[in-house]
Amino acid sequence: MSHAAGDARRVLDRCDELATVTSIAHGLERVHLSPEHARVNVMAAAWMAEAGLRTWQDQAGNQWGRLEGREPGLPALVLGSHLDTVTDAGRYDGMLGVVSAIEVARRLAPKAAELPFALEVVAFSDEEGTRFSTALMGSFAVAGNWHQDWWDRADRHGTTVREAAKNFGLDPERVHEAARTPEELVGYLELHIEQGPYLEAADRPLGVVTSIAGARRFTGKVVGEARHAGGTPYARRKDALVGASEIVLAVERLAVELHGIATVGRLQAYPGGVNVVPGLVEFSLDVRAEHDEDRDALVDRIAQYGRDFCAGRGLGFELVEAHNAAGVYCDADLMDSVVAGIAATGDAEPLRIWSRAGHDAMAIAAITPVAMIFVRCEDGISHAPGEMVRLEDVAAGLDAFEAMVLDLARRRS
Amino acid sequence: MSHAAGDARRVLDRCDELATVTSIAHGLERVHLSPEHARVNVMAAAWMAEAGLRTWQDQAGNQWGRLEGREPGLPALVLGSHLDTVTDAGRYDGMLGVVSAIEVARRLAPKAAELPFALEVVAFSDEEGTRFSTALMGSFAVAGNWHQDWWDRADRHGTTVREAAKNFGLDPERVHEAARTPEELVGYLELHIEQGPYLEAADRPLGVVTSIAGARRFTGKVVGEARHAGGTPYARRKDALVGASEIVLAVERLAVELHGIATVGRLQAYPGGVNVVPGLVEFSLDVRAEHDEDRDALVDRIAQYGRDFCAGRGLGFELVEAHNAAGVYCDADLMDSVVAGIAATGDAEPLRIWSRAGHDAMAIAAITPVAMIFVRCEDGISHAPGEMVRLEDVAAGLDAFEAMVLDLARRRS
Repeated sequence: MSHAAGDARRVLDRCDELATVTSIAHGLERVHLSPEHARVNVMAAAWMAEAGLRTWQDQAGNQWGRLEGREPGLPALVLGSHLDTVTDAGRYDGMLGVVSAIEVARRLAPKAAELPFALEVVAFSDEEGTRFSTALMGSFAVAGNWHQDWWDRADRHGTTVREAAKNFGLDPERVHEAARTPEELVGYLELHIEQGPYLEAADRPLGVVTSIAGARRFTGKVVGEARHAGGTPYARRKDALVGASEIVLAVERLAVELHGIATVGRLQAYPGGVNVVPGLVEFSLDVRAEHDEDRDALVDRIAQYGRDFCAGRGLGFELVEAHNAAGVYCDADLMDSVVAGIAATGDAEPLRIWSRAGHDAMAIAAITPVAMIFVRCEDGISHAPGEMVRLEDVAAGLDAFEAMVLDLARRRS
Repeated sequence: MSHAAGDARRVLDRCDELATVTSIAHGLERVHLSPEHARVNVMAAAWMAEAGLRTWQDQAGNQWGRLEGREPGLPALVLGSHLDTVTDAGRYDGMLGVVSAIEVARRLAPKAAELPFALEVVAFSDEEGTRFSTALMGSFAVAGNWHQDWWDRADRHGTTVREAAKNFGLDPERVHEAARTPEELVGYLELHIEQGPYLEAADRPLGVVTSIAGARRFTGKVVGEARHAGGTPYARRKDALVGASEIVLAVERLAVELHGIATVGRLQAYPGGVNVVPGLVEFSLDVRAEHDEDRDALVDRIAQYGRDFCAGRGLGFELVEAHNAAGVYCDADLMDSVVAGIAATGDAEPLRIWSRAGHDAMAIAAITPVAMIFVRCEDGISHAPGEMVRLEDVAAGLDAFEAMVLDLARRRS
């Protein structure tokens, strides 16, 4: 096995190891401020320490490691991704980036004393927003953009972020200490699986990300009247689920029409009796587009449709914004290093892709330039147990990732 | 306050008292074989004993009381209804019938020695099917129609009927002891709120039920592919929720077209991540019509639509029958007594209504003639906290209920 292939094997083995830390009996779920979160931070810290990094966990639950450069205290180039997952997740979304960053740091540790910057690795705590329905809490805290109203957000069991943070051993009063300043940083580089089919279609292992679409997320409600399913004639029904179903179909229809991406991922009818007309439906809405103005136009059309349709049916309609990330363009200078890194693996003109998925890089862009490299995944499958990457693509990714850092070091020396 | 109004007040007070026994923090839910079920059986038994009845709980969790007639061991006329509820229920569906039956037995106790039959009161344990998605388990057991495959049915926490029965203190091996024989019975009379708007529209407090529509109930699945909501182009999506939403709309459309009643009361998308295309939707389907053959035709049309639509979208579709009750015609002779009973309250030609809702009477009809009296409820609201009955209607109901029994006694003497 080649050097790179051996490293890639270790990366994949570590992804497998992380996947054993889950809160559900079958499959993978690991959410913000959970016991599983604590356990993988410990694992990542151990791997960082083994690679020669000094490690710490910040007050937002992010796990860090640092390798000093040619002198102590230099601004840092940060490599990283996240360790939290969706429900019934795959094992590479986020984790591959964290473990690859550790691997690259391990490779560079012997030559760190020559680097014109410090090298840091970060494992962010909450990219997906699975538990509290708001995403990027970990990286927003690092960017100094913690929202005070997040503290009272509750998970489905009623536990608030504040309570969960305390149970995790964090001090809510000190979350500002997780914030980094532009002066401390050189930039942020993130390796991630593509989560889409474009690299595979182009037969390329790696791609350079040009921009990251900013998602807007909402929690929606359709309010009707819970009534007996037998005794209530259709003319007297206010069926919240019939209303919500019309909205789900309109979401897809409008997204296709306006060339955006909109998804209802979560939906539940209440009270949920087999013989009761649903009186309430709660659902989530996620909206994306390459450009923020197109995305916002799509949101407006969906909201308008929901209001009009529900009004016509005598139903209540509510759409409350839970998350709003502005789209982010990757930094041209860092992108040059990404291109150089991929070129070093044999692909001189890498595919340029805009990321339909959100990433921690979006939050970090507020304080330092960001760039990303995508690794091909099988059939574009992500956020599902079927996430797959090839060993040879991971090996190429590690080589490119390392070469990027060295290219940047050369140009900054 | 008149005699009847005082009794009606006690009936309503007892409904209020039963409503305090709930498994949810806000509102009423009391399901089969739960601790709440045990508690209300104790309450009902105490009221029965106070009324002079000998009481016992059978091996299906039904609570009984008996008043001997002019000699011990005569076949019994059974009065009753159920004490279980839907989720976020009202306080009269089922409970009003049980408490009224106890009240009528209390009134008749002094003259029981003149009756040509014994009088029994029953509080059935599982009419709604809230917990195990199959209804009428209590009354089916009494009718000797317990289904062996019910034992392995699980609630949403994975607890099976067998485990729940044992935890409740019942012996699954002895469920057959709950069965009654035709020889032991004279008939079954049930008082129930209408759960529909027809009595109110006709300005009548009481109505006579002609038949009870038999519901068929199904658990349905639409199977797609859970994928990343950002990265998956529409052409590659297999969104189970989009498929299920089309089906929900078709269920209403087809039901109206075929003059039946069909409802999707329960629906949930999985895995339920805000940024994940739903890979699975589970839902319930409840179908009714005045005549069983119309109902079955509607079921077939819905199933055909679901299969065709899902096949066209590359989705899986599954509809598994969870409950199938044949429609039941009320007994002509008992109906005459119901009409006589209502006539005694001043309405000589009571409104005749077919029951869109299912009732324990359907199961009991397998072993003895059944009849029912409906009490007007406000705006037809049922299976919701807004269930309301008027004190004077309950008073009329008690008088009619008692008069029915006496009319039958007279005709059987």
